[in-house]
Amino acid sequence: MRHFIEELEDLRKQLLEMAGLVELAVHDSVLSLMERDQERAQRVLVNEARINQMEIRIDELATRLLALNQPMARDLRFLTAALKINNDLERMGDLAVNIVERALSLMAQPPVKPLIDIPRMAQLAESMVRNSLDSFVKRDAELARSVLLSDDAVDDLRDTISKELVGFMERDPSTVSRALDLILVSRNLERIADHATNIAEDVLFVVQGVDVRHHAEEHD
Amino acid sequence: MRHFIEELEDLRKQLLEMAGLVELAVHDSVLSLMERDQERAQRVLVNEARINQMEIRIDELATRLLALNQPMARDLRFLTAALKINNDLERMGDLAVNIVERALSLMAQPPVKPLIDIPRMAQLAESMVRNSLDSFVKRDAELARSVLLSDDAVDDLRDTISKELVGFMERDPSTVSRALDLILVSRNLERIADHATNIAEDVLFVVQGVDVRHHAEEHD
Repeated sequence: MRHFIEELEDLRKQLLEMAGLVELAVHDSVLSLMERDQERAQRVLVNEARINQMEIRIDELATRLLALNQPMARDLRFLTAALKINNDLERMGDLAVNIVERALSLMAQPPVKPLIDIPRMAQLAESMVRNSLDSFVKRDAELARSVLLSDDAVDDLRDTISKELVGFMERDPSTVSRALDLILVSRNLERIADHATNIAEDVLFVVQGVDVRHHAEEHD
Repeated sequence: MRHFIEELEDLRKQLLEMAGLVELAVHDSVLSLMERDQERAQRVLVNEARINQMEIRIDELATRLLALNQPMARDLRFLTAALKINNDLERMGDLAVNIVERALSLMAQPPVKPLIDIPRMAQLAESMVRNSLDSFVKRDAELARSVLLSDDAVDDLRDTISKELVGFMERDPSTVSRALDLILVSRNLERIADHATNIAEDVLFVVQGVDVRHHAEEHD
């Protein structure tokens, strides 16, 4: 069984490496928007290929470990959670690319307004990504629960941002297309936070064997 | 092994039943928008609880089959694909709820314009959901590939819809908030189509053992 344990450890490391890449992609995507930094935006686009390759590699490893061993209980939950977390991470990478596409379009135009809530939302989403993965690695249910709690704050920020930008569009039609891009950036951040929430739910399932999906609201 | 085969069959049936619920939810969400039908909208909200329960049940069944048997090759691919497809279906259910929320808000206000491209996009997305699940049940690689081909048409419709609605917002600021709701509906439909594409990719993996993720563009 020694070999199996080493392979599980390898899987955990690969997921962490992928999470690091995804975290960086999210961070860089918003920073490229804030600082109108085309080079940084390009870096996100280039890194996406690596994230996609890692997804396939991790998927293969987790599936192989399911096939060649007969993992029970905790290890089985870990492996099926790894498959899901892997999927969530890859989608977050896609969402960072979506943000970069908006950022590149916005860079070519004058700013609508100084951005305050979007970087705040990005910071929150990034910390949710980091904490969800940390909770997975450390099997820390408390930390996973804290991620679930942040989700409401993200939704509030999304609403604040939409409301403000709709106001801009209504008062000055010349801002419509740029303000819409910013609203779409905030929606992408919201979805990144949603994926972090999914991961935290999977962690609670692995650690406690408790399925909190669709009940997170009541529990917290 | 007879028992295992029966349980696999049961899993397949449950996934199909869930897919039927999700298809109906997508269909009803757009119809409630088109016909300003509040009752139909409510039905989608009520059905979401059933979809969520099915997700948990299917997840448990697939995980148990992975645990209690030692499925190899094709069955293993089927079971890990079932976990992913289940997840995609549940998210589609969430997206139908998002559409209903926009529909309920829009019902209370005068229409911006007659809707033409949104129902077209919905029809395309629905057929992608149906075909991706049919391809899974029939192990039909040809049908799965046809789903991948539809994705570009969905993206084109999304762009057409956005462009037209941005025009409305720029010409008449009183339409901003309603037009934004319609743009968000089209984004939700786009994501539903994306999930159908994910399912079709999983089917190709199950049937052919070929991983087409991140290469769909080149192949088609």
